Amino acid sequence: RINGDRLWDAIMEMARIGPGVAGGNNRQTLTDEDAEGRALFKEWCDEAGLSMGVDKMGSMFMTRPGTDPDALPVYVGSHLDTQPTGGKYDGVLGVLSALELVRTLNDLNIKTKHPIVVTNWANEEGARFAPAMLASGVFAGMHTLDYAYGRKDPEGKAYGDELKRIGWLGEEEVGARKMHAYYEYHIEQGPILEAEKKEIGVVTHCQGLWWLEFTLTGKEAHTGSTPMAMRVNAGLAMARILEMVQKVAMDAQPNAVGGVGQMFFKPNSRNVLPGTVTFTVDIRTVDQDKLDGMRAAIEKQAAEICEELGVGCSVEPVGHFDPVTFDPELVKNVRDAAVELGYGHMDIVSGAGHDACWAAKVAPATMVMCPCVDGLSHNEAEDISKEWATAGADVLLRAVLKTAEI
Amino acid sequence: RINGDRLWDAIMEMARIGPGVAGGNNRQTLTDEDAEGRALFKEWCDEAGLSMGVDKMGSMFMTRPGTDPDALPVYVGSHLDTQPTGGKYDGVLGVLSALELVRTLNDLNIKTKHPIVVTNWANEEGARFAPAMLASGVFAGMHTLDYAYGRKDPEGKAYGDELKRIGWLGEEEVGARKMHAYYEYHIEQGPILEAEKKEIGVVTHCQGLWWLEFTLTGKEAHTGSTPMAMRVNAGLAMARILEMVQKVAMDAQPNAVGGVGQMFFKPNSRNVLPGTVTFTVDIRTVDQDKLDGMRAAIEKQAAEICEELGVGCSVEPVGHFDPVTFDPELVKNVRDAAVELGYGHMDIVSGAGHDACWAAKVAPATMVMCPCVDGLSHNEAEDISKEWATAGADVLLRAVLKTAEI
Ligand SMILES: NC(=O)NCCC(=O)O
Ligand SMILES: NC(=O)NCCC(=O)O
Repeated sequence: RINGDRLWDAIMEMARIGPGVAGGNNRQTLTDEDAEGRALFKEWCDEAGLSMGVDKMGSMFMTRPGTDPDALPVYVGSHLDTQPTGGKYDGVLGVLSALELVRTLNDLNIKTKHPIVVTNWANEEGARFAPAMLASGVFAGMHTLDYAYGRKDPEGKAYGDELKRIGWLGEEEVGARKMHAYYEYHIEQGPILEAEKKEIGVVTHCQGLWWLEFTLTGKEAHTGSTPMAMRVNAGLAMARILEMVQKVAMDAQPNAVGGVGQMFFKPNSRNVLPGTVTFTVDIRTVDQDKLDGMRAAIEKQAAEICEELGVGCSVEPVGHFDPVTFDPELVKNVRDAAVELGYGHMDIVSGAGHDACWAAKVAPATMVMCPCVDGLSHNEAEDISKEWATAGADVLLRAVLKTAEI
Repeated sequence: RINGDRLWDAIMEMARIGPGVAGGNNRQTLTDEDAEGRALFKEWCDEAGLSMGVDKMGSMFMTRPGTDPDALPVYVGSHLDTQPTGGKYDGVLGVLSALELVRTLNDLNIKTKHPIVVTNWANEEGARFAPAMLASGVFAGMHTLDYAYGRKDPEGKAYGDELKRIGWLGEEEVGARKMHAYYEYHIEQGPILEAEKKEIGVVTHCQGLWWLEFTLTGKEAHTGSTPMAMRVNAGLAMARILEMVQKVAMDAQPNAVGGVGQMFFKPNSRNVLPGTVTFTVDIRTVDQDKLDGMRAAIEKQAAEICEELGVGCSVEPVGHFDPVTFDPELVKNVRDAAVELGYGHMDIVSGAGHDACWAAKVAPATMVMCPCVDGLSHNEAEDISKEWATAGADVLLRAVLKTAEI
């Protein structure tokens, strides 16, 4: 069993870096705070005897050697970057539980046949640079390195430049590593495990996603002296599209979501009708046909809404993954581990995207989940109990050992 | 008659300061560019022999003495500040036509009984610091100086601090000056004069306005893993309110408008349902009862929309003026001047707010308007012809002379 207190202390120490304004964290990708968090993590890995590799996307791979020189490593990890108003556990729990797992093996002097690589993927959140899971996506061959380097934050700073700036541009080719398997432990970020009173989510699938970035072009004009009939009102078109997205998501129930998190008006002045309105629609469901149907319905109806108002409408997909089915053998390992340890568990679909979704493209992969209070995540008030954290890390250790072999 | 070429050259020279990105200007209130524009204007006023007074709001009063020591001055002006993506003429035309008027009187060696004060009001646009017409509002006793100094731009910088920073904090008590009359010449910013092929708008009234700043409080949550039924969706509430504002404005036709120019999502991340959505509704009409009715309808229905979604709703009025009726004698002076000069003219209601609306609280006031292409304003593409500019400045000169007396 892992040391729950040590895991918890590590999480709390990491949370001191890039503190938020309401008890959570703001440690966004490739900021100075991200660099500080990486340095602390590296220090801990050094102490645990791990050797570091960093790839050209800035992902960190911390290796504990195995006993068989020919055996491919088992990767275990998640991410240390956060949302601008993120919680202390999203991502961090998975990385530091992987570290805790290694610390426990060190304590018990347990050697594994396969090396174990504690992994911190870069830019999982996609908050500063869309899309999410960018580095694992390049690793899995879903994006080119050039594409990733060119991704820009809202201030126009590019991923490639910022990676160099914070000093974490590595030398390894992205995706050159071969994985025997990939495990990721994460908070659920949804309400189901808590409602069902289960400590462990055995993650069988992950919802697919589209991020559709709309740019609506209206006519910048005076809010006071422009008669209603002369307006080319991009704000009104946006309002109608948001209502329509809600309807598309409700029509796709159960197990589908749709909403908007990001919105920009330009020039964003109280007495100017916006010249452009830019926003990103986020739709997800685990059923591939339903997902594609939602996207098509939204694009079609948005075009109609805009046409009626004379507003220009362009749509760029800025994030996407298909629904994922995790590896049945690894899923069974997680389920068996929960049973053996006597934790309440259930099969679950991940509502959020994770690096495991891209890892699943290149290796057998799965995830372990623990509940979070009120299903709340991407919120500084995100919360879990030490007992939940410990239970999941225990299950992770036991499942990983089934694959890494003692 | 004024010198149309000289007026036009002055406008073009001012437009070099704080150039926009598409041929217009970004010379927002109390920026370095504003300071630069003020310095150029002062230089021109010095050359014209005007003496400067600056009040504690930063408004500039440039005096040409009269022949009667007991006669109160006639004020003539507008504003030099612009929208973030503003045109070259909005405000500037009025200030520089007032200067041109004085230059013409100097050329012709014409003296007036009443002094003439060429005026540049501070922060007319209200883009950086709400509300609009802030300095003339303090002058007219509508706001306190403390209120004005505390107004903040979106970065949190206060009016009082920025005024000091750019070096234009004057010593005069705001509103201490007594006016014999106030004239303001401005582009229409609407489509009517152009459609009716009239060079001169004789402005009889100005629409009243409410700026209602809504802050909707939702629950920050993950866009992927938060089921539809658990969402407290402030973005959706916003969308419904925008549609409702449109309906309220359409129901209030003719001669009423409603729309939204400014919008902020927080934390504004693609995969986070917004914790707060803040936006400003701008409603205007010339009928007092209708205006109050629109406001009441919007606040009532917004509360209902938010209640249904469980979203918190607070409304703060951040700008307001009642509909204005301009002084009949001054209005007649403008109409007579247009007739005498043989310009096509019509009575018109100002769709936008102007410093003249506040000046009208403390003195007889009115405005002259010229057409603008496509009725477009608050847009870098805002355009007028030199002939239109000249016609309005001629009418201004002649009307002012009727009041200032030769
Ligand atoms: N786990 C998580 O929140 N990842 C960010 C990508 C997403 O939006 O699902
Ligand atoms: N004239 C003008 O655009 N003034 C700004 C105040 C308003 O929004 O009407």
